[in-house]
This record gives sequence, C-alpha cells and structure tokens, in this order.
Amino acid sequence: MKKVAIIMGSDSDWPVVKAACNQLHEYGIEYEAHILSAHRTPAAAADFARNARANGFGVVICAAGMAAHLAGAFAANCTLPVIGIPMKGGAMDGLDALLATVQMPSGIPVATVAIGGAKNAAVLATQILAVSDDALAAKLDAQRAEMEKQIAEKQARLQKELAAL
Amino acid sequence: MKKVAIIMGSDSDWPVVKAACNQLHEYGIEYEAHILSAHRTPAAAADFARNARANGFGVVICAAGMAAHLAGAFAANCTLPVIGIPMKGGAMDGLDALLATVQMPSGIPVATVAIGGAKNAAVLATQILAVSDDALAAKLDAQRAEMEKQIAEKQARLQKELAAL
Amino acid sequence: MKKVAIIMGSDSDWPVVKAACNQLHEYGIEYEAHILSAHRTPAAAADFARNARANGFGVVICAAGMAAHLAGAFAANCTLPVIGIPMKGGAMDGLDALLATVQMPSGIPVATVAIGGAKNAAVLATQILAVSDDALAAKLDAQRAEMEKQIAEKQARLQKELAAL
Amino acid sequence: MKKVAIIMGSDSDWPVVKAACNQLHEYGIEYEAHILSAHRTPAAAADFARNARANGFGVVICAAGMAAHLAGAFAANCTLPVIGIPMKGGAMDGLDALLATVQMPSGIPVATVAIGGAKNAAVLATQILAVSDDALAAKLDAQRAEMEKQIAEKQARLQKELAAL
Amino acid sequence: MKKVAIIMGSDSDWPVVKAACNQLHEYGIEYEAHILSAHRTPAAAADFARNARANGFGVVICAAGMAAHLAGAFAANCTLPVIGIPMKGGAMDGLDALLATVQMPSGIPVATVAIGGAKNAAVLATQILAVSDDALAAKLDAQRAEMEKQIAEKQARLQKELAAL
Amino acid sequence: MKKVAIIMGSDSDWPVVKAACNQLHEYGIEYEAHILSAHRTPAAAADFARNARANGFGVVICAAGMAAHLAGAFAANCTLPVIGIPMKGGAMDGLDALLATVQMPSGIPVATVAIGGAKNAAVLATQILAVSDDALAAKLDAQRAEMEKQIAEKQARLQKELAAL
Amino acid sequence: MKKVAIIMGSDSDWPVVKAACNQLHEYGIEYEAHILSAHRTPAAAADFARNARANGFGVVICAAGMAAHLAGAFAANCTLPVIGIPMKGGAMDGLDALLATVQMPSGIPVATVAIGGAKNAAVLATQILAVSDDALAAKLDAQRAEMEKQIAEKQARLQKELAAL
Amino acid sequence: MKKVAIIMGSDSDWPVVKAACNQLHEYGIEYEAHILSAHRTPAAAADFARNARANGFGVVICAAGMAAHLAGAFAANCTLPVIGIPMKGGAMDGLDALLATVQMPSGIPVATVAIGGAKNAAVLATQILAVSDDALAAKLDAQRAEMEKQIAEKQARLQKELAAL
Repeated sequence: MKKVAIIMGSDSDWPVVKAACNQLHEYGIEYEAHILSAHRTPAAAADFARNARANGFGVVICAAGMAAHLAGAFAANCTLPVIGIPMKGGAMDGLDALLATVQMPSGIPVATVAIGGAKNAAVLATQILAVSDDALAAKLDAQRAEMEKQIAEKQARLQKELAAL
Repeated sequence: MKKVAIIMGSDSDWPVVKAACNQLHEYGIEYEAHILSAHRTPAAAADFARNARANGFGVVICAAGMAAHLAGAFAANCTLPVIGIPMKGGAMDGLDALLATVQMPSGIPVATVAIGGAKNAAVLATQILAVSDDALAAKLDAQRAEMEKQIAEKQARLQKELAAL
Repeated sequence: MKKVAIIMGSDSDWPVVKAACNQLHEYGIEYEAHILSAHRTPAAAADFARNARANGFGVVICAAGMAAHLAGAFAANCTLPVIGIPMKGGAMDGLDALLATVQMPSGIPVATVAIGGAKNAAVLATQILAVSDDALAAKLDAQRAEMEKQIAEKQARLQKELAAL
Repeated sequence: MKKVAIIMGSDSDWPVVKAACNQLHEYGIEYEAHILSAHRTPAAAADFARNARANGFGVVICAAGMAAHLAGAFAANCTLPVIGIPMKGGAMDGLDALLATVQMPSGIPVATVAIGGAKNAAVLATQILAVSDDALAAKLDAQRAEMEKQIAEKQARLQKELAAL
Repeated sequence: MKKVAIIMGSDSDWPVVKAACNQLHEYGIEYEAHILSAHRTPAAAADFARNARANGFGVVICAAGMAAHLAGAFAANCTLPVIGIPMKGGAMDGLDALLATVQMPSGIPVATVAIGGAKNAAVLATQILAVSDDALAAKLDAQRAEMEKQIAEKQARLQKELAAL
Repeated sequence: MKKVAIIMGSDSDWPVVKAACNQLHEYGIEYEAHILSAHRTPAAAADFARNARANGFGVVICAAGMAAHLAGAFAANCTLPVIGIPMKGGAMDGLDALLATVQMPSGIPVATVAIGGAKNAAVLATQILAVSDDALAAKLDAQRAEMEKQIAEKQARLQKELAAL
Repeated sequence: MKKVAIIMGSDSDWPVVKAACNQLHEYGIEYEAHILSAHRTPAAAADFARNARANGFGVVICAAGMAAHLAGAFAANCTLPVIGIPMKGGAMDGLDALLATVQMPSGIPVATVAIGGAKNAAVLATQILAVSDDALAAKLDAQRAEMEKQIAEKQARLQKELAAL
Repeated sequence: MKKVAIIMGSDSDWPVVKAACNQLHEYGIEYEAHILSAHRTPAAAADFARNARANGFGVVICAAGMAAHLAGAFAANCTLPVIGIPMKGGAMDGLDALLATVQMPSGIPVATVAIGGAKNAAVLATQILAVSDDALAAKLDAQRAEMEKQIAEKQARLQKELAAL
C-alpha cells in the first residue's frame, strides 16, 4: 500500500496534526510526518513534492496557517492528491488559511478539509487509498458503524439525564 | 477503472459543472452525471450514495450552492472520497456554500475545492484514481507540462506586447 | 397538544440546548430530546424526520455547528416547521453554522434563530403551537409582561446606582 | 383558518416579496400584504403587530433590508410567530440584513429564512398553520412529491443532453 | 443646556456604558441613564423617544448588541440626533451589532461610533451640544490638548525604555 | 445658523454626495462642498479642519472610500461633530470604508452613517443643528410626517395591485 | 539603477497590471514584465526569484488572485523586497487574494498593496529605489505636487457646478 | 546607512512592536521608535513625516489598530516607503486595521504586512535598505539559511518523537 506524507509548516502545528497520525495508525496505514515550509524551506518542500510519487507516497496531507501556501506548493509540484488542513492562527480565526488553501487556480486542486480538521484529513487520505483497496474500505465502513454505536450510547445517556431532570 | 459520479443539486449548476465532465472526458475517465438534491430528493440521494461503491464508482463529485449540504449528505452515506464544489449563488458570493461544504465534523470529510471549481474537482478525482493507475498519473503529468507550455506562449506574447508599448 | 422534538448533532451541544428544554418545561409543553447526526447517523435522522408528524410532534428544533446540516436534513424529510439553532464552534464564531442553517434552497425552509439561541428556539416552537392554542398564547403574553417587569426592576437598580455615583 | 400577514419595509421589496403571496395563494391560504416601516411608520407598525392576533392573523412575515429591524419590531409587539426575510440591498450582499434579522435577544425570536427567501417564508408560514390542519399538511406533502417529480424530469433531460455530448 | 439620554438595552451593557456617563460628568453635562429595550419594552422605548425633545434632551445615546435595534427604534421615534454604540456580544465580535446599527434606511440616520465605543459616544454628544455652546467647545479643545500631553509623556517614557534596551 | 461643510475625497464621490447637498438645500441650511483628500492634500485638509469652527461651520460631513481616513483626519483636527459616509468602492462592497470610518480610537469619534448614506448624513447634520434651533426641528418633524404620508400612498397602491392579482 | 520585475500569475491579470508598467515608465525606471505562476510553473518562478538580485533587479512586484501564492513564493526564494498585488477574481471580491498575500509567516514579509492596486505597487517600488536615489525621490515629490494640483482643479470645477445648482 | 523610524499609535502597541526593534537591532540597523497618533497628535505626526527623509530616515514603520490611519497619514506626508502593521484590537480580530491600512487610494501606497507582523515589518525595512547595500543583503541571506537550519532541527526532533510514538 502507498504511504501517506503528512507535512506541517511549523512545529507549532504538531499538537493538532498529531490527530492525523493517530488516525492513520489506527487504520494501519504507513505514514511519514515532516516539517517543511513553503516559505522557509521552499526548495526542500518542492523537492519532497516532486519525488513523492516515486518515493512511494499515494497521498500528501499539508497543514499550514495564515497565508497557507504549503498545500498549494505541494500541489504545484506533484500530481498526487494533496489534502490541505487550514490551521487556525492568531488572527482571523483561520479564515485566512481556509481561503489561501481552497481557492486554488484551475488545474491545480487542493482537497481542503475543515479548519484544524487533521483527523478528517487522515480519513480522507484513507478513503483515497481505499478506492483500490477493499480491505481498507471495509475498515472505513466499520468505523462508521462504530460512530453510530457511540452516538447511540450518548443518546442513551441523554435519555437518562432527561429522565432525572 | 472506477467511474466518477458527478452530482449537482440543481440543473442551474449544469453550465458550471459541465467543465468537470469535459475534463474527465479528456482524461478518458468514465463518469455519470445526475441531478439529486440533499433537500428535494433526500432519499434518492442517500440511496445513490449508499450504493455508489457497489455500483462501480470510485469518487463522487457534488456541486451545490447556498446551504450546500449535498456533498455532506453523500459523505454521510458512503465512504468513497467525496469532492465538494461550493457554487456561487445569488448572495454571499459563495462564502455560504464554501463554509457549508468544508466545515464538516470529525470523521466525515468532504474534499472541498474552490468556489465554482468544477474543473479542479475533475482533476482531483483523476488524481485520486491515478493513485493506483500509473498510466493515468502519466496523463496528469502530461497535462502539467501542457500548462507550462501554454504559459510560455502567453509569456512570449506578453514580451511582444511589451516591446510594442 | 403536539410534542416538540429537540435534536442535537452532538452531546457537546447539550449544555446550550438544555435551555430549550427548560423553557419548554416552563410552558408545560411535552418534548423529547435526542442526539442524531446528519452525518454520523443519517439514516436514523431521516427516519425520525419522516415519522415525526405521525409520532405526534408538531415542531422540530435542530441544533448543530460548523457545516450545520442537521436542520436542513430534517426539513428535507418532513413538512413540519423545523427550527435551526446554529451552534458556535471552534472556528468562525458560528458564522459557518448560521449560513449553513439559514441559506436553504427554495421550497425547504429552516426557521433559523440566533447563534446559540436555544431559549429562543423554544419560544418560537411555543409560538407555533400557540397559533391554535389560546391558553398557550396567553402564557406567551404573560411571559412578555414578566420580561417588562424584570427590566423595570433593573432600571430601578440602575437609578440607585446612578444616584450613588 | 388564520390569515398570514406579509409586511414589507418598502415598496421596492415587492418584486421579491410577491413570490410569498403567490405561494400562499397556491396553498389557498388567506393573506394580507402591507407596506409598513419600522423606521418610517413605527407607530403604525407597532399597532398592526399588537392587534395581529386579535385581527385573525396566525403568522407574520416581515421583509426588510440593511439594518433590517422590521421583523424584530413585529416580534417585540406580538407573540405570533414572526418570519423574517433579510433582503439583499445595495451593499454587503444582504449579510447586514441577515444579521440584523436573526441575531435577536433572548425571549424574542424571529424565524429567519434565507436572504431574499420570500417563497420559503410562505412555505414556513404554511407549515406553521399546518401543525393543526391536516388538510394543509397533506398539501405540503403533495408539493414535496411535485418537487421530486420536477427533479426527475430535469434528471431525464440531463441524461439526454449527456448522451448527445 | 440640553440633557443627554443614555439608553442601554440590557443591564449587562452597563460596565461598558458607564464610560459614557463618566465622560459626560467630566464635561459637566447633565445626563440620564435608562434601561429600555427595543424588543422587551418597545412601548416604553417609543414613548421615551417621542417625548425626549420635550423633556429637555438634546442628544440620545443608545447601546445595544446582536440585532441591535435600539438606536434605530429611537431614531424612528424622534428627530434628535441618536448616537448608536454597537456592543460586542457572544458571537460575531460585534459585527452583527455594527451592521444592525449603522445601515439605517434613507431619512432615519443613526450616528454610529466604534464597537463598544461608549466614551466616544459621550464625546460626540458633547461635540453636538457644543455646536451652540462656546464654553463647551473650549472644554473639548482643552481635552485634546490634554490628550496630546499624555502622548508626549508616554513618548518620553518610551524613549527611556529604548535607551535602557 | 452655522454652516455645514461637505468634504469628499475624490470628485468620483460627487454623484453620491450630491444627495447630501440637495437635502441640506431643502432644509434651507447653508453649506459648502469641497474636494479635499486625507492622502493627496493632507495639509489643506488639516487646515480646513482646524479653521472650520472659526469659519462658521457647525458640522462637517466627510465622504471617502477604501481606507477611508478623511473623516478621521477631520475629527483629529477639529472638535466639531464630524459625520463620516463610507463610500462603496471597487472591492469589498464598502466594508473596508465602513470599518476605516467607524472604528475610531478613544477620544476622537466619527459619527458614521450607512455605506453611501449621503442623504442621511445631511439629515443627521440637520438634527445636530436643530438641537438649538426649534424651527429647524419642526422642519425635521414635518419631513417625518411627509415620509409617513408617502408610505401610506405606496400602501394604497399596493392594495390596488393586490386586488388586481 | 536597479530594475523592477513585474510578475503576474496569468495573462488575465495584464489589463490591471499594465498600470504598474505605465507608472514605472513615467518615472523612467527600467522594468521587465513576465507571466509566471506559483502553481503552474513553480520551478521557473523559483528560478527567477533566486536569480533576481544577481540579474539586476531591486524590487519584485507580484500580482495574483484567489489563493494568491505568487508573491509569497517569490518572497520565499529571494530577499529582495517583494510587493504583492491581490487581484480581484470571480468570488470573494479579492478578500481571498488579500489574505493569501498579506498574512505571511514570521521572517518572510510581502509588502501588500490594495486589491487591484497595480499603480500603487509601482509607486511603492519607486519609493524603495528612491531611498538611495535623490533624483528619483525628487520625482516622487513632484508627482505629489501634481496630485495636489489636480485636486485643486477638480475643486474649482466642483465650485462652478455648485454655483450653477 | 539610513535610519528606520518606528511609529506606534499608542503605547499599548509596544509589546508587539518591540519585536521590530529587536529585529532591526540584530541586523545592526539604526532606528528610532516614537509614539505619535494620526488622531491624537495629527500635527506632530505630519511634521515627523514631512521631515523624515531630511532627518536621515530611509523607511518608516507604522503600527496602529482599529481605524488604523497612522500609516496612511505618514504616506500622505512623505514619499519614503511606509510599512503598515495592522494591530489586532478589541474587536474584529484586526480585520478593521488590515483594511484601513492596505486599501490606500491611487498614488499613496502603504506596504502592509500581516496583522501584528512587527518582525516582518522590520525584515521588510531591512530588505528595502539592502537594495543598495550588499552587506546587508548578505545578512538577510544568512538569516534565511539560519531559518532553514532551525526547521531542520525541528524536523529532527519530530522524527524522534514519531519514532517514540
């Protein structure tokens, strides 16, 4: 199975991005995580992107905030699916990062997930790998069933709480 | 190769969404296009989503405007990668559709592209299918080379125009 | 009298949504509260909605945040009045949830109240039931008189505070 | 059956608001339409609101733009359900009207629909009246079935267009 | 000299609005402060506004948050200058209150100051009264001179701090 | 009676600002209109502001777009009431001008009216002059009565149109 | 004197960007204009940036819209001052491009001008070159004097128009 | 070498602005820091600006919040490059200051950096001075190399942390 590359623009993104690693680990998907910046290490970022497919990666996840160019820089330098996580920074509540990530020009898409949505980036990466991997698709279906069960449990707890009001 | 499903919430989305069809056709990817609404035909939409993988689809593209729930409704009912195109409507310049498409809850991602980004949705779908299809990946790389060539031509024309200023 | 259904997308909404329950209890209106998610339990949510009128409900209140599709999903599956409470989440101060709730397409309205406005959702539900229930309408009028009295008391306290400046 | 009052802040709102009248007419619901302004005729507006229930109205629809206070002024002066239509004006694409309509304080809700959503305001008013009127509820269900049929027809036309591509 | 009326929509506005009282007191301007709500005590608010000029008021200051209609309701019911203070509430950082206060329709202005700008509302009220009161105008000029002096002192302190870097 | 100064940052503002002149003319208020720019003629603008009171002005109206500093620059250089009209420009629908006009720092207010609200700026200026001029106040009241009459006429026309539906 | 590089992301930017060329031509500053895209020709863009100083450029101007990464990509690859012009595109009125251009991370600034502000980008580039070029600085001062003169002429025309009202 | 002037509108900006001083000190660039307000000390601010070039300054940095006119006022009164730092204030997360700083009219640019971007303002000022100073340019290049090294170290730490997961 292809690997997933998780790139973050700064080590300050790690506490949020970690959720993507945990999720991929749960699915049994091999991944690498790296700190590479579109602005501070542009050559290294471009190199990584250009060689990503050859190096066995199937999907790239990029997390960055503010004028979030990281996902776009990767998308510009490879034709793998690139997933962008807009990070909430000091100002604008992440709207700046969302627009800078999603509003890509014609021909160079970035698959953007919710602001701070690291877990969803990992789920989306898994869905992409599962297109040609039925066992992985079954795991995704199982996780949905698990989610339904959790909500049923919460629903049961709520009914108890309501009865006690 | 898996098919791509292109779903639009209204026939008024067709002039924009057509670009996705054209792009997929260019890549030689089989697709179906349907009008299904999260709000006006919710049962049909859910049915389509639940059976999409079994019916040979690998990726789903959903285009919707305003309180754009279509991509989210598909993502809720299948575990295929779902790509959302926020459509620009009468008010808010598409910001409403963008936020309603991208801000999905944990566990249920939508791969969101730019407002009105139908062509990019098709490119992203192709990138997803190309993860396990080297021939398709080569086509994507070729398209990039073509884009570079087009820009070089435009650059040449600009130099002539500048010389004539 | 018809019952009110209060649906929340996540148990994390409960501390805010509780205010709706308290308000309905004060008016003597029967209600049920449930956790159902447009994205995590779409089939259960659609089932609940489709049977709501037959099950004795007169109004449905839905609370959800981010790409808040819950109210829209209910509105798509029943013709009872559906009241939407956009919840303030981690990003965008609730503007994402407001737009995703209120900007519904033609034919499928959601009666949207203020961001986090759980109490007002309950008052609106009561106003709807009171259209054909004069005793309930009288209670609503009485609550308004009570509100005026509270403001008069606050006004009196302010005058004392001003006199002491 | 109770009547619906449709109030608009200015005659310039009429081309949009007319859709609400047409929709109510289709459902066979009696309505009145008036021009009353929260700012230019505040006393007349308050009078109308205070007497609305006694005058046989069951629901009030208010359409206003910019600092849209009309729905709030009605909600302040009666306890009938008040539906607010934020109108798109010259600036801000209607976001000003949306926020001025929906962000009501605790105790005084306005049931807000989409920017310019006159038809949906009428559908919501009908849903409210149908809570205690099964014949009207049946008409609402029939309209939904009609909507599904229309989409099926559009879907058929699209398939023909695709076949001809 | 005419009095200034300071109206707030809720006692929760008092900690911010107090700054307006203090400022008016400093200028030696007589004022009254009241809690009156456009939505919870609409009749009392309209009465106050209609009689404000006759009762010796020259300017009205209104502070309100969210769908901030208070200033507009006063402006609708009297032709005195009405100053609006948009209050920062739980959501939207006060943008909702700003738009609901400033975007008034033709013929009914509200003189809007910054979000939470209670002191500036009092300064503006003083400027208005000073149009026909030269002694008061002199006080305003003196306050400006005082402001310049304070900045000069801060500038001096900064130079010391810089020297010690 | 004191004069009103109407300052615009550019002659392109004149088609909108003219409405302020017309309104003041209707009230019989003497005014001057000038083109002065906070950025292109800062010294002339500051001079005008510093001498405005001495030159017989009672109120200053400033219209500017984009990073609209004109009203602020006037407010910084005189203690007359300064009314700001945020002008709608090429981008941002006037939100940039609104925020740049209204969000003034403590001590230096600008009385901001709606985006493009030239007529309202003139009405507000008149209200300010009317604080100490009962005859002018009577004219303002008369204009309100006229507005009510106009709405009554529109209301009558609407009833005819409805009857003919 | 150093040259100015003007880079645009697409030939569709040319009608706006041309104003920068004209302005530089007026100042007698040598410039080159090129079409280079951060996303479609990332390697060529990075190459140009890395060699810009050695190739005799003193300032770089970059114009791009939507997820406008061009200025950031140049700033990442050279330490010349990089001026960013956010371009107004199909959606969001250029706010997306503004935030994507200005919100750069620590250490890698982009000198951002107004949305569509091509002329100002050229003026800023000239100001930068004039820091060490007194003759150029004199030209900038002369242009300001010319601007004052133009406003004086417009002011004179306005007075005539006012006299004729 | 020319000096850099750092102007802040209020001493409350100092904790953020200090980062600019530290950065300039690191580069060995002479600077002065002053508190001057476009609104509270307009004459002093204009004087400073008009004499800045003659007093040996090469670049001016202005930091201000809310209706941030400081940078614009400096740009209006001198033709040196003026860098604007929009400060995050109490409301609007700094969007008000950003728009008030960047949206300057034709002919009078402000080189705007990110909200709160004091360090980047200093880097940009250094880049401007380095256009004609190769030693300074070398320092800028060295800082970039240092940044790359820091990221490499963070990357190494991350790999250890990942290995220990």
